[in-house]
Amino acid sequence: MSHTHVPEQPLGRLSASWRHCVGTGRLNLALRADHRESLALVRREIGFRYVRGHGLLSDDMGVHRVSGGRVRYSWTYLDQVFDHFLELGVKPFVELGFMPTALASGEETVFWWKGNITPPRSHDEWAALVRALLAHLVDRYGVDEVRTWPIEVWNEPNLVNFWKDADQEAYFRLYETTARVVKDVDADLQVGGPAISPGSDGWWEPFAEFVARRDVPVDFVSRHAYTSGPAQHVPFGTYQTLTAPGALLDQFDAPRKHLAGTALAGLPVHITEFNTSYRPDNPIHDTAYNAAYLAPVLAGGGDLVDSFSYWTFCDVFEEENVPTSLFHGGFGLLAHRQVRKPTYHLYAFMARMGPHVLARGEDHLVCRDDDGRVTVLAWQPVGGTGGPDAPERHDVRLSVPVPGSRAFVRRERVNEHDGNAFAAWRELGRPRSPSARQLDVLRDCSRPAVEHSARAVVDGRVTLDLALSRHEVTFAEVLPVRPEEHEGLDDRRLLGVSDDRLVAAHER
Amino acid sequence: MSHTHVPEQPLGRLSASWRHCVGTGRLNLALRADHRESLALVRREIGFRYVRGHGLLSDDMGVHRVSGGRVRYSWTYLDQVFDHFLELGVKPFVELGFMPTALASGEETVFWWKGNITPPRSHDEWAALVRALLAHLVDRYGVDEVRTWPIEVWNEPNLVNFWKDADQEAYFRLYETTARVVKDVDADLQVGGPAISPGSDGWWEPFAEFVARRDVPVDFVSRHAYTSGPAQHVPFGTYQTLTAPGALLDQFDAPRKHLAGTALAGLPVHITEFNTSYRPDNPIHDTAYNAAYLAPVLAGGGDLVDSFSYWTFCDVFEEENVPTSLFHGGFGLLAHRQVRKPTYHLYAFMARMGPHVLARGEDHLVCRDDDGRVTVLAWQPVGGTGGPDAPERHDVRLSVPVPGSRAFVRRERVNEHDGNAFAAWRELGRPRSPSARQLDVLRDCSRPAVEHSARAVVDGRVTLDLALSRHEVTFAEVLPVRPEEHEGLDDRRLLGVSDDRLVAAHER
Amino acid sequence: MSHTHVPEQPLGRLSASWRHCVGTGRLNLALRADHRESLALVRREIGFRYVRGHGLLSDDMGVHRVSGGRVRYSWTYLDQVFDHFLELGVKPFVELGFMPTALASGEETVFWWKGNITPPRSHDEWAALVRALLAHLVDRYGVDEVRTWPIEVWNEPNLVNFWKDADQEAYFRLYETTARVVKDVDADLQVGGPAISPGSDGWWEPFAEFVARRDVPVDFVSRHAYTSGPAQHVPFGTYQTLTAPGALLDQFDAPRKHLAGTALAGLPVHITEFNTSYRPDNPIHDTAYNAAYLAPVLAGGGDLVDSFSYWTFCDVFEEENVPTSLFHGGFGLLAHRQVRKPTYHLYAFMARMGPHVLARGEDHLVCRDDDGRVTVLAWQPVGGTGGPDAPERHDVRLSVPVPGSRAFVRRERVNEHDGNAFAAWRELGRPRSPSARQLDVLRDCSRPAVEHSARAVVDGRVTLDLALSRHEVTFAEVLPVRPEEHEGLDDRRLLGVSDDRLVAAHER
Amino acid sequence: MSHTHVPEQPLGRLSASWRHCVGTGRLNLALRADHRESLALVRREIGFRYVRGHGLLSDDMGVHRVSGGRVRYSWTYLDQVFDHFLELGVKPFVELGFMPTALASGEETVFWWKGNITPPRSHDEWAALVRALLAHLVDRYGVDEVRTWPIEVWNEPNLVNFWKDADQEAYFRLYETTARVVKDVDADLQVGGPAISPGSDGWWEPFAEFVARRDVPVDFVSRHAYTSGPAQHVPFGTYQTLTAPGALLDQFDAPRKHLAGTALAGLPVHITEFNTSYRPDNPIHDTAYNAAYLAPVLAGGGDLVDSFSYWTFCDVFEEENVPTSLFHGGFGLLAHRQVRKPTYHLYAFMARMGPHVLARGEDHLVCRDDDGRVTVLAWQPVGGTGGPDAPERHDVRLSVPVPGSRAFVRRERVNEHDGNAFAAWRELGRPRSPSARQLDVLRDCSRPAVEHSARAVVDGRVTLDLALSRHEVTFAEVLPVRPEEHEGLDDRRLLGVSDDRLVAAHER
Repeated sequence: MSHTHVPEQPLGRLSASWRHCVGTGRLNLALRADHRESLALVRREIGFRYVRGHGLLSDDMGVHRVSGGRVRYSWTYLDQVFDHFLELGVKPFVELGFMPTALASGEETVFWWKGNITPPRSHDEWAALVRALLAHLVDRYGVDEVRTWPIEVWNEPNLVNFWKDADQEAYFRLYETTARVVKDVDADLQVGGPAISPGSDGWWEPFAEFVARRDVPVDFVSRHAYTSGPAQHVPFGTYQTLTAPGALLDQFDAPRKHLAGTALAGLPVHITEFNTSYRPDNPIHDTAYNAAYLAPVLAGGGDLVDSFSYWTFCDVFEEENVPTSLFHGGFGLLAHRQVRKPTYHLYAFMARMGPHVLARGEDHLVCRDDDGRVTVLAWQPVGGTGGPDAPERHDVRLSVPVPGSRAFVRRERVNEHDGNAFAAWRELGRPRSPSARQLDVLRDCSRPAVEHSARAVVDGRVTLDLALSRHEVTFAEVLPVRPEEHEGLDDRRLLGVSDDRLVAAHER
Repeated sequence: MSHTHVPEQPLGRLSASWRHCVGTGRLNLALRADHRESLALVRREIGFRYVRGHGLLSDDMGVHRVSGGRVRYSWTYLDQVFDHFLELGVKPFVELGFMPTALASGEETVFWWKGNITPPRSHDEWAALVRALLAHLVDRYGVDEVRTWPIEVWNEPNLVNFWKDADQEAYFRLYETTARVVKDVDADLQVGGPAISPGSDGWWEPFAEFVARRDVPVDFVSRHAYTSGPAQHVPFGTYQTLTAPGALLDQFDAPRKHLAGTALAGLPVHITEFNTSYRPDNPIHDTAYNAAYLAPVLAGGGDLVDSFSYWTFCDVFEEENVPTSLFHGGFGLLAHRQVRKPTYHLYAFMARMGPHVLARGEDHLVCRDDDGRVTVLAWQPVGGTGGPDAPERHDVRLSVPVPGSRAFVRRERVNEHDGNAFAAWRELGRPRSPSARQLDVLRDCSRPAVEHSARAVVDGRVTLDLALSRHEVTFAEVLPVRPEEHEGLDDRRLLGVSDDRLVAAHER
Repeated sequence: MSHTHVPEQPLGRLSASWRHCVGTGRLNLALRADHRESLALVRREIGFRYVRGHGLLSDDMGVHRVSGGRVRYSWTYLDQVFDHFLELGVKPFVELGFMPTALASGEETVFWWKGNITPPRSHDEWAALVRALLAHLVDRYGVDEVRTWPIEVWNEPNLVNFWKDADQEAYFRLYETTARVVKDVDADLQVGGPAISPGSDGWWEPFAEFVARRDVPVDFVSRHAYTSGPAQHVPFGTYQTLTAPGALLDQFDAPRKHLAGTALAGLPVHITEFNTSYRPDNPIHDTAYNAAYLAPVLAGGGDLVDSFSYWTFCDVFEEENVPTSLFHGGFGLLAHRQVRKPTYHLYAFMARMGPHVLARGEDHLVCRDDDGRVTVLAWQPVGGTGGPDAPERHDVRLSVPVPGSRAFVRRERVNEHDGNAFAAWRELGRPRSPSARQLDVLRDCSRPAVEHSARAVVDGRVTLDLALSRHEVTFAEVLPVRPEEHEGLDDRRLLGVSDDRLVAAHER
Repeated sequence: MSHTHVPEQPLGRLSASWRHCVGTGRLNLALRADHRESLALVRREIGFRYVRGHGLLSDDMGVHRVSGGRVRYSWTYLDQVFDHFLELGVKPFVELGFMPTALASGEETVFWWKGNITPPRSHDEWAALVRALLAHLVDRYGVDEVRTWPIEVWNEPNLVNFWKDADQEAYFRLYETTARVVKDVDADLQVGGPAISPGSDGWWEPFAEFVARRDVPVDFVSRHAYTSGPAQHVPFGTYQTLTAPGALLDQFDAPRKHLAGTALAGLPVHITEFNTSYRPDNPIHDTAYNAAYLAPVLAGGGDLVDSFSYWTFCDVFEEENVPTSLFHGGFGLLAHRQVRKPTYHLYAFMARMGPHVLARGEDHLVCRDDDGRVTVLAWQPVGGTGGPDAPERHDVRLSVPVPGSRAFVRRERVNEHDGNAFAAWRELGRPRSPSARQLDVLRDCSRPAVEHSARAVVDGRVTLDLALSRHEVTFAEVLPVRPEEHEGLDDRRLLGVSDDRLVAAHER
């Protein structure tokens, strides 16, 4: 059992990188009612500040239209989407892509919803579109607001799935055209790239060299991070191996390492997508394992990057076609119908951590508020496919400093049983289209278990003995208690027992 | 000026056919937030009971899926859509179509969103799908509920756009297969067709002959009605001529006429789509003209058919691609952003009419409640493209019976200025993507003008002199007034004028 | 341990008496926002059909006003209150009282809010007021609606606190005047009394004799039931002894017993108030003990009476002045700020019971839905002040019939720790004015603990072994499971383990 | 007709004094649902920043409680009220009063709800209460927040109705005790007085002398302003004469004048109550006259004081007992049921004025936004009881500067017919308890009339000819229009008329 004596002096402030941004499917889905309900929920309970999705320029957003030989840029849907984001208090992390069909140089597409992945047939027309888009955004939302929105050029151009032939030179050219027009609209708009996938660190050096040589603007760099192996397909699903969680942190750290010494050294680094598996049909995303796996990543990622954006906040997502079952291995923190998954709770727990870090270890993070409340995130360490099996129980003992003489401890637990809608769904027979009653049951079973107790503070400290069960993530908070006087109250008298009897009882 | 002495005895009850059903774009759009807000609004203010849309079986509903060689019927989106309809108190008028790609015999599609219009490659597979669908609906919503949902087979099979080669024999075969499987699931489910478009009355006789000969179940018949001429295209829009409104009523009446004497005589008739123009980009839909044109149709259509379903309740609609402008000639009663169009008000006025019809004429409909309130719908008659120009003013005089001695009259007006968001939008310079402020202005200008007055009842009657301006639709209600005594109240004393002065004023 | 073999055939339907009606403080409080939120909550989650409160005619409702020598009956507040009840789907159980000061014959009052308890100075004026009130209600809500509202004459006239001198003859006279005017307004309005408190069964015979002799209308009879002893005051609170729960049922049964053989035999009997303690400052109401105590009463009361109305649904209540602390011993199912108390959960559990009773015992009630779901309410029996101490654990074993081969069991627990906001509040140091954070904690800790599991059905049965902790009330539901096929899914492969390894694991 | 050439250069910024604060009845009423709905509405549509009401310390707030000989300060209701204010974004303008009965030196009360108006029986106990109150507020809401809340000592101590014997010396003593304890809790809390009524300017000099002599803290001064004469009572109502509106501005200016040269010169001045009549049963408050009368006061008051607080924002108010009729002459901007009165619209119009004042005259105020939108408030000047009768029509002509070549003009009108629920209510027969249908009619008739038009900008200007009807207040806004190109659109073609015919029409 780990046993940690948590110091009284904070190590520093908890980084906000973990909730800077979150991912979503293509932006057209943001018109949907369930997408909006889900976003409102994560905004309220987790507090993400930015949201990033694909397909801003794809045909189903209707941005680039032709009729009777005339081109018209149209913002009908874009305005609805961004208006709504901002109403909720979430800003867009703008990803420019994919290619409008009428502007495309080829017919290759990605995903069931057919995003065109080819370069523009004309860089001038592309530039005109980007210029019109940004001018519209500035006009509608104000330049001060839009300056706070990072603008990322394309998505994973290093993969043939996402960029025709994964043509690096063509990407650099697209990047240059785009970055120059961005800055031409307003010099303080923020542009960046190259939004590359894992396994493509070879792109950093040429990218840095290219932009330096041609003096192309770059305000931030971005990449993605996933730790899953090749897809093992089954009908309507996929299994994959996972490397250990540390590999995610290594991926986070790669841009800074590779850019050291280049012109791009020191720029903000955004992990614009990350998760365990990169497949939207891998059941791992629905499990408590996923939460336990990511707990140390959320606790520690802020040391390495400016943001790391969970892909995605909800299962309203169609890259592999329309989901056929409530639980289907989607990326979402939320399943359809806003059912909270275990990883959702991990994020919600993080959102309740105090701002000052007191301690961080391999199975815990301890923080404190300004008013003395101590918050604990604890988890069972897991090691990916190759790691040892997680035992049935993992013990964490923490001695935490608390002012005053009494404390109230509340704990919430997520594991293979508690706070685990996926577990309940399996017990229910895996209903693909749950009835209203089944959905109620799932929502009910998705809530973490709650425990609470009064504790005496001894020598300024309370000791927490947290027995975690398999794949558990626990949140605990220790509230200093100022007892209020209610003279005359005596719980022993609840049934109106006479004073004599109380005395007698006391004397026994 | 028409001058009508409205009788005291009702002619009968106002038919509810006008609000039995309303149309919408493909069902996938019913997942959208603006679609839901719009439906909730028309449900609340107009009270439609059913909603009918295309594309229940199209790929974007994910109903028929194949993965790893296995077929799976999936209700993920369907359940969301129908759950929501029922929550709002609206039932589905089920249209079975179009063809799932994996089941299709060909590749022909209709619309920007590519509904497959070919017959099934296997009638057995089609039957299996329909059976699974209906069994699921019965399981989820209960057989008593689903028995109230009409099930219509396909859409406009007489047109090559909607049914490959407009092959009548192939449609009859599809109808038979479908109708038999419907009845096999439950004998009391209601099935019908042929959902034909205007100009295809030649289908009635063979359809009646076919189903009689083979004893195929038919519980209702359906067709569509539009009065517009060929499309005159302009960029992002269309103009068309219109015949006079009476032509719509003639189309409503056609099924009954053509089926007289056949085995289908006397069946319920549903006009499952109607409007002036059949184009979703004809600005006529946005005008007061459209409302004035349809007023006599709503007032009189109930004599002829069991329902006539306005196509469509909102502009969330993509048959001709994503709209590029707030107003774009869409079918909707509501523009995007839930801006009410003049025809919306026509429907909202109808929804406030009392249940007992007292009088109906070429420019008015007069009804009464059980409690003596009289309601009036009045309109300027218009005649389509060939008709005479509507004059600037049209006068309607009605003498209406009112109990008691005093009445309150309230009037709401929709015309080229009042209750006319389209007019305000043009005055604003036709902004394609209105700002928040402009949307506020449009919503504000979309409200009908309101007038009110106190009237004495003379000889049991109040005379309404309604001067309608161009293309106006007016709603008026006459409320009997029971004055309440407030002894001592004297409005002349509002500024504290002394009694002496009041007496003096009175004597002057 | 009790061990019950639950039969398959139902004993009958579960009576709805337990949720027919619920009590509240004076009606003026129903204007308050927290009262409305609380009522909406209990309506939604419990489903009470009627609500009964005092003070309809008291001065703070402004019903009987005099100004400048003129009397005016005024419905400003009454309409707001009843409009709102009906919007929520709750009907008023009308209690006529207390006396408007301007109509009163004396100055005696009851409660901190000073309800006048004296007879009318003029029975004609009283009759005029009641007539005007009922005529207004009929006019506003329709006679069909008002006929469903029981009208009860006064409150506890047998107590000097509530009726001057507890003058029986004066009450009978008031009853007669009132009942006659009620029937005069509409012969089908329902009137009743005498709304007597415990310990006054001596009133039944003279009441029956009086109404029979003078042929006074009586549509129902009513009384109250409490089982607490004399108040033991402490500052801002009270303790009392309690007799055993069976005494409540005895009180329920008393009217029927005493009226047997009289003209009132067979009339509906309403217990228009009941609870353990009749004091609004006795902490017993906040405890799990209260819930365990009342569980057999809710399960069995329907055998004896047509309704029994918990006094009260929320702590918005001022008979003993404004509460000084969140928890203060109020009657409410809900504390202020809509914090659910243990007894709230008892009611919410009852609301989820199926309609068919399969078994009922001293510690359990078992019901079933039409679709095979079995629901269980189980509790630890407690015996009041004189009874034995409740042990730390109480075991209930039930063998319940379940169709099919698999089942899902969900259980919710309320006891001295779980679902017990009062316990958490004590641990928090009994904060009188909890902060926003403390309120969040209390709401969180007020939720019952949830457990769930998959179970095999053996010989058509599932055995539930329910270990209840101290003062626990448990709800369990057994859902038949129809497993759905997801071919290829294999939870052992979640981490992408190879088939070989799976095989190896299997062979071990 | 006035004819104003509005200059292009602003005179300055529009003062926010007019919406700094608004009044309400006693704070206990803020627990009510209709009070909350009303406050939410005025907050959203008008934007008041503070709200001030009586009775914070009165018995019905339960702040000072005694039980079993023990005193307890209790914040049960206070927290609910202030929590809710802050949730809505409104801050409390704290008025300390009236006296808790248990602390009072006498039994004199004011109002139907009996606020005790006597000095404390002990200044120490009073100081302890105030200290506890402020310490609690600081603890709950944070000291930074509470420092922004003005704390005003008592209400109208110069009147015998509100302060026993209107004893100046006793008030000064209370002020001193209170101010010292306020500063003792936190030196940056803001304290002030003397909250005197009109006609008591004789208090300024002694108050200034007293606080200077004894060095008592004063952060602001306050008084009230009303222009009505003696009450002329009728049953359930009052009429009064009114002096001209300028008299209100004179009252606003009095503190500054009287304090010039004293130690209090230069302090912020708050008019913590104002209206035409000081009676809550004078129908003048419900009229368009009231709005026209106050228009120049709202336009000009900001020159004189830091705030002037309309008494009150809604008719949820009980100083003269429970209102007996929907309209009853209450102070509210909103009648019961949230019906907007004409003066409400005056405030809502002010809330839409741009920040830069371009012109101000006896019948108009013209402002501009940063984006070129020009806003106009125009009114018919009225002169109180002694003034000349307002003519049927008042003309205002304004030439306003507008950028670009086209403009959109929208106008909203409130007068004896439009935006006038009171007028419609009279036409309806003055129903005291309006039915749901009547309430709908009233709400509908309460909306201002809307007009809109497109205008050409000539020489950089648009001329507005505003014909105001009797007692009208008009709001107009002029929006610069940037026409968007929709090539091909031609409204003449709406009915599909051929080009030939268009040409022919054009040539005619």
